[in-house]
Amino acid sequence: MYRDVLVIGAGVLGLSSACHLKRKNPEKSVLVVDALGGPGRGNTAKSAGVFYNLHSSESNYLLADSTIDWLFHLQDDLGYDLDLAQHGYLYLLSESKYSMLRGLVSKMRRWGIDLRTYDKDELKRVMPDLVTEFGEEETELMGLDPVDVGLFGVKCGSVNTDALARSLEVDFLGLGGEVSYNTAVTSLILRPERRLDLPGEPFVWQDIQVVGAETERGEIEAETTVVAAGVWSERLLDPIGFDPLMRPKTRAIFVFKDPRLQGLLGVRGFSSLNTLPFTQIPEIRIYLKAELTEGSIWLGCADDFGRRYGLEDDPKPESGLYSNSIYPALVKYLPCFQDIRPVNMWAGQRAINRYDGVPVVAPAPGMIYVGSATGTGIMKCDALGRAVAALYADEEDVELFGGRRLKAASLGVETRGVEKEAFKI
Amino acid sequence: MYRDVLVIGAGVLGLSSACHLKRKNPEKSVLVVDALGGPGRGNTAKSAGVFYNLHSSESNYLLADSTIDWLFHLQDDLGYDLDLAQHGYLYLLSESKYSMLRGLVSKMRRWGIDLRTYDKDELKRVMPDLVTEFGEEETELMGLDPVDVGLFGVKCGSVNTDALARSLEVDFLGLGGEVSYNTAVTSLILRPERRLDLPGEPFVWQDIQVVGAETERGEIEAETTVVAAGVWSERLLDPIGFDPLMRPKTRAIFVFKDPRLQGLLGVRGFSSLNTLPFTQIPEIRIYLKAELTEGSIWLGCADDFGRRYGLEDDPKPESGLYSNSIYPALVKYLPCFQDIRPVNMWAGQRAINRYDGVPVVAPAPGMIYVGSATGTGIMKCDALGRAVAALYADEEDVELFGGRRLKAASLGVETRGVEKEAFKI
Repeated sequence: MYRDVLVIGAGVLGLSSACHLKRKNPEKSVLVVDALGGPGRGNTAKSAGVFYNLHSSESNYLLADSTIDWLFHLQDDLGYDLDLAQHGYLYLLSESKYSMLRGLVSKMRRWGIDLRTYDKDELKRVMPDLVTEFGEEETELMGLDPVDVGLFGVKCGSVNTDALARSLEVDFLGLGGEVSYNTAVTSLILRPERRLDLPGEPFVWQDIQVVGAETERGEIEAETTVVAAGVWSERLLDPIGFDPLMRPKTRAIFVFKDPRLQGLLGVRGFSSLNTLPFTQIPEIRIYLKAELTEGSIWLGCADDFGRRYGLEDDPKPESGLYSNSIYPALVKYLPCFQDIRPVNMWAGQRAINRYDGVPVVAPAPGMIYVGSATGTGIMKCDALGRAVAALYADEEDVELFGGRRLKAASLGVETRGVEKEAFKI
Repeated sequence: MYRDVLVIGAGVLGLSSACHLKRKNPEKSVLVVDALGGPGRGNTAKSAGVFYNLHSSESNYLLADSTIDWLFHLQDDLGYDLDLAQHGYLYLLSESKYSMLRGLVSKMRRWGIDLRTYDKDELKRVMPDLVTEFGEEETELMGLDPVDVGLFGVKCGSVNTDALARSLEVDFLGLGGEVSYNTAVTSLILRPERRLDLPGEPFVWQDIQVVGAETERGEIEAETTVVAAGVWSERLLDPIGFDPLMRPKTRAIFVFKDPRLQGLLGVRGFSSLNTLPFTQIPEIRIYLKAELTEGSIWLGCADDFGRRYGLEDDPKPESGLYSNSIYPALVKYLPCFQDIRPVNMWAGQRAINRYDGVPVVAPAPGMIYVGSATGTGIMKCDALGRAVAALYADEEDVELFGGRRLKAASLGVETRGVEKEAFKI
């Protein structure tokens, strides 16, 4: 089977790439394959589904800020229902941690990011469930700093990742694209650029290129292969010696639904939604997200050093992670969680780019790799799909939704030119 | 068992780090452990053992140039016999590939690198075995470009890696250091910085640190653990979630000893040694090295894209790599290899940093990782050992042999600040 473009992975990055490729090149045949049975069934489905324009790397800011605008365009102008909820992003910090972020905050404000601060008294008033002063021996022993400052980003919220993936699929199919699910790719196919048809090719002195993929349903040849397989990309890229600069880590999410959390879920004043913003307590490496469609609170663990790297097909939350590890510290800040146990939990994997925390969109002969970093692919999916289409068309600039631009080569590997991300979840 | 500093790996990087740490901190106990039975028995022993100061990245240039000076100091002033042979480095290029390097060549000359060029006629004269014009259909079909230019670096040569590793060990033991061979490390030990002695520690909200290593001979606690285990480092670092920015690839070396190669081995005029320089033909991704102690020529394959990433404990040259893949192209440039088969061959692994091709010396709590990149650890070992000792002492600058300096943080991960290397083997 031959297609002009083969996209491996029907997550948000693969589908967004496929849409932009097909839209710009309607005459080309574009096929998306995925090992799973539908769009966004891999780690897209396991993510927290948040978006925020708070990034200290200008590349990340442009990728996310333009994609957020596009998400609202998709819902408000094109009529796709994405359950967008702009509840804001609240970062709860001690005075000493906040002082280290002052430079970043000024930079983000210069870019036009709407960023507010709450002092301790304001936090107490708007978020009565939050403990901002400990004054007890136990938290001292535990080494926990109290909360002095809340940093609040306005253009932040959550999106239904399943609806987003399905919308992208609808868009792509409407453009005349093809999708083949339950089609696991087993390897990429390498051939010499100039074939001699001799046994043993490719030889070490030949220039080689990717010419498609071997799948469980047979070989698919393609002029260009887009690898957008998320954490699974390394299974395809290691054998051909291409380093995507990303390694997978497991991140768990716990779901809480309890009348005792209604106060927290319904905090007023942060946004017109009058609900809990996406709230991060970096001191204990957790975040909370209001899931309005089900009236629940999601809690995620965002530890890094100490959490192993390694690909897992079916990751699970570590035994005791919530009850033994997170809980004792969580209830110090939010006593309303006392004695409440999660009603659901799961784990997904995210690809971590420890080097600079910025996505990679990099060409190799016959191939384009696209990978997000630190699990922020959903909020950058439109921009990254555009970057893939720009590389495909050999364009110097990526034109983002809304008209801003960035250099396509800056997201590459050898040609990389991005600022490191310092603002991490 | 407790030591102030535990160094994992008795290759050149581990031993050099151990020497500099012990020399600067004589009151500290420093122990080097290695899974193998002696110094430099891992990939140090399998390397080509070349050094060169031709690097387009200023960091790489400083690391290598100062270490080369130190190698000569070690042999000429301190009396260690390292079989140093300054036979130069010859890079054979087509006119079109050379023109892409002109900018780099100018930059290197500005730094003071002694770099000469040979045109085709000069090459023919000094290296009569080399074919510089093909004019035949077969090479055309194969897509091989002829040689038009030779770029020659003077401060380049080879070193006996075994002698180097043993010299470093002698130096280290003389300083009062300890070495324990046949002591495989199975894992790094992580503990909270503030221990509560509760079951389940470390918890996600605790700051953690490396406090030593578990070995097959028992636990070794240490205030600081230096991870210098080369490609094996990932087995220790993946479980603690630290990304060294390096991945392993296998590289094969073939040895030739034949009267028909005497002319090539004995080319005159490049250096006072009147022997073959370290010669690279990037067009076919191979290099040659004269091994004067045994009158042989070593041939290495330096392919990259297409060559898989993956750790191997006992790598072997791929079957047919020389005879089917390298040979048909090699004899086009050097017909003297006609019908000659290697008398010996082996393979080693090198850690590739595809991002920037510059070594990494990076701290994490309780730990310092040191890794070279692209297999150039031997020619940078002294400088990298100094960088480890500078990080240990919390010094801002690394003072290199001879007095030049570079920022210690520039070789880190989060704090990285190096130029990318564009001049690759």
